[in-house]
Amino acid sequence: MEVTRTLARYVVNSKLADIPADVRREAVRSVVNWLGCAVGSCRHEAVDCALAGLGPFSGPRQASVLGREEKVDILLASLLNGISSHVFDFDDTHLKTIIHPAGPVASALFPLAEYMPVTGAELLHAFILGVEVECRIGNAVYPEHYEVGWHITGTAGVFGSAAACGKLLGLDEQQMTWALGIAGTQSSGFREMFGTHCKSFHPGRAAQNGLSAALLAQKNFTSSNQVIEAKRGFANVMSTKRNYAEITENLGKTFEVSTNSYKPFACGIVIHPSIDGCVQLKKENKLSGAEVEKVHLTVPHLVLELTGKRTPQVGLEGKFSVFHSCAVALLFGAAGEKEYSDAMVRDPKVIAIRDRVECTIDDSLRDDECHVELTLKDGRVLKKYVEHAIGSRERPMSDDDVNAKFHVLVDDILGQEHGERLLKLCWSIESLKDAAELCRQSLPAKAERRRA
Amino acid sequence: MEVTRTLARYVVNSKLADIPADVRREAVRSVVNWLGCAVGSCRHEAVDCALAGLGPFSGPRQASVLGREEKVDILLASLLNGISSHVFDFDDTHLKTIIHPAGPVASALFPLAEYMPVTGAELLHAFILGVEVECRIGNAVYPEHYEVGWHITGTAGVFGSAAACGKLLGLDEQQMTWALGIAGTQSSGFREMFGTHCKSFHPGRAAQNGLSAALLAQKNFTSSNQVIEAKRGFANVMSTKRNYAEITENLGKTFEVSTNSYKPFACGIVIHPSIDGCVQLKKENKLSGAEVEKVHLTVPHLVLELTGKRTPQVGLEGKFSVFHSCAVALLFGAAGEKEYSDAMVRDPKVIAIRDRVECTIDDSLRDDECHVELTLKDGRVLKKYVEHAIGSRERPMSDDDVNAKFHVLVDDILGQEHGERLLKLCWSIESLKDAAELCRQSLPAKAERRRA
Repeated sequence: MEVTRTLARYVVNSKLADIPADVRREAVRSVVNWLGCAVGSCRHEAVDCALAGLGPFSGPRQASVLGREEKVDILLASLLNGISSHVFDFDDTHLKTIIHPAGPVASALFPLAEYMPVTGAELLHAFILGVEVECRIGNAVYPEHYEVGWHITGTAGVFGSAAACGKLLGLDEQQMTWALGIAGTQSSGFREMFGTHCKSFHPGRAAQNGLSAALLAQKNFTSSNQVIEAKRGFANVMSTKRNYAEITENLGKTFEVSTNSYKPFACGIVIHPSIDGCVQLKKENKLSGAEVEKVHLTVPHLVLELTGKRTPQVGLEGKFSVFHSCAVALLFGAAGEKEYSDAMVRDPKVIAIRDRVECTIDDSLRDDECHVELTLKDGRVLKKYVEHAIGSRERPMSDDDVNAKFHVLVDDILGQEHGERLLKLCWSIESLKDAAELCRQSLPAKAERRRA
Repeated sequence: MEVTRTLARYVVNSKLADIPADVRREAVRSVVNWLGCAVGSCRHEAVDCALAGLGPFSGPRQASVLGREEKVDILLASLLNGISSHVFDFDDTHLKTIIHPAGPVASALFPLAEYMPVTGAELLHAFILGVEVECRIGNAVYPEHYEVGWHITGTAGVFGSAAACGKLLGLDEQQMTWALGIAGTQSSGFREMFGTHCKSFHPGRAAQNGLSAALLAQKNFTSSNQVIEAKRGFANVMSTKRNYAEITENLGKTFEVSTNSYKPFACGIVIHPSIDGCVQLKKENKLSGAEVEKVHLTVPHLVLELTGKRTPQVGLEGKFSVFHSCAVALLFGAAGEKEYSDAMVRDPKVIAIRDRVECTIDDSLRDDECHVELTLKDGRVLKKYVEHAIGSRERPMSDDDVNAKFHVLVDDILGQEHGERLLKLCWSIESLKDAAELCRQSLPAKAERRRA
């Protein structure tokens, strides 16, 4: 069975016109969500460190580092964009595999679009195909591949980047097959790295290595033609499970990007139902938070297992505390990156509510389901049952939600007006004659002036 | 048990003066052998393709591509040197793990030495430590790790490059631990790639990624402190066997570089005893090759399993033919890269002898042992028993052998006189005030003039 070649052939022959409008629409939402994350996190110390370490070896100033003033070569830009888009843990999720699909793919496509003439429609098409490739390969090996310790966003993502970049570069079928091979033989990234800068390094390196693979294949650097299915290739070496039908069936008929989801809250997905319930109760009852005497959550056990930190000391630990998360949800109606700052987890107002949160385990609940019960100081009791958390496939974020998230992330970097211009441009991606306009619009005003 | 940190601490604290003279001597031989391979193969199409694909994104012209005129940034130079040093399959072998140790380590150290002031002694010290790290990590997981399909020169090599480069960069213990972590989470490379350009890409990428890891760690890009031993780290995810004592015991007392070996012949090691026997018989009896009526080999079964190709059509297939290899050994007294050209496997004189070679299997023989029996046209029968092939640990190549191999590889690129200058310089590495002199001397005259 020709798995790798079948996939390569599909990518090479795919036409944008054959992709349904609703699929393209979800792809645009994915790009908007990704771009907000990449710009919003661009000043994170992981990006600073990577730029300090590797910047001195950058090639020509070919591409933007999204949201920043520096320009670097397209390979380094891919790495840096990939790091920033993932470092807040706020990017998209392909729920079937928990791949974060946009990072490895879009982080390489944007720099490449600055290097060669590409329309917005061509970029979007390549993005859809890249997501298709990485998620299908992920589907074939998940969950065993993930459970053994591979960070699947990196290991599958590198294939997606190679396919997407190879599409823009116009590779033929043999070259695309090689590109997947060169990408696959770089597949890497351990879950052991979670909690360190290396976690976000994985989608960044996947983007960069996938782009390298496509560039090498374009010059006929040879590789195996069976990197996925060979006895000593990806699926056999890196997984105990392999279901090749997930890769080869219904190509061009179903689209993985259609199942993409976006996080409303900047923390692990298991506490999203609890936060969602608190935000809803706050809004419906116009609560300030100060009225709360007690918070009672009923949740599946995974919530406490993964996010049971009672007294987080720094912002990052707050993301692993359902108690802190409910407190900020009740006080601010949000749980974005700001609500997980060091200052926030030490704020006495937050701590006061955090210490009043109690949990009961109920394993008859699904992972995206919970009960929230507030007892107010005046004795009132408010209840909310969350059947599916906001951001789930059953209750996806609306376009307005996606836009609001974009502004929360981007406005600190670019300002509200500039952020709105970039947002509108991103929604119009399919009609852009020059996709690089998106990269240029993502730069802060100072860099724009310097460029002019 | 602190495996990763123990290794990092050792590398950081090691002093060259503590390393015995015979170990340093073997390290110099390893560098000479590696440099000959890298310069000799520098015009291979794999190097051309890689340079064509990635050259347009190179940073400043900081480092030499050994043997070539182009200069590129130190990261790209590491990749290209690593490709050229391995692409002839003529480099060194750590027999316990079949790692080719010099490639991933020296290919990054040479460019780094051009970027920062480094003495030859410092470079040699870093080289010894890099080889130590990669081979010890290899020892801990071999053979299971290799058998499942990992190309161990790539997967272990990236650790070696990071350790060696980190030593030159003066990383502290925490940074060195991170460097190993950043390197390890990039560990990759499938054996499926054998027979394609990607095989030599593995040591190249290992060199480049290890150097990247050290540069990132120097700027405090964080990683796990337990990349080797963690539940979801290297040894558990990428191997079913792990023996951490191989990594942590006798550090600073035994040295893996002491066990390095060099190939006298540019083909798989299993046919070396047969070639060796033929070369010895030719020399001792002053044969031209034309006198040979029949060649009878008695060899272990692995020889025919791996190199049983009766009628190779192209040069690369010749390397998998014990028949072709014995024919060129008898005709030319050598089996270097030239004897595995396309023209050579099609030469009627070679084919005439090749077709007279017969094999008998005898599995009581060790892998480096064989019997060669020649029947000449005049009826004489000549016999040679090879107890250990030249290049084995028991019968290592002499310094003269290493020098002769260097010249065969390098003289085509640099000319005999220039090659001899470079060779002498390499032997004097420990006394060089500026190790970069080696890089400069490895360039062809035209590039030297241009630089002057």
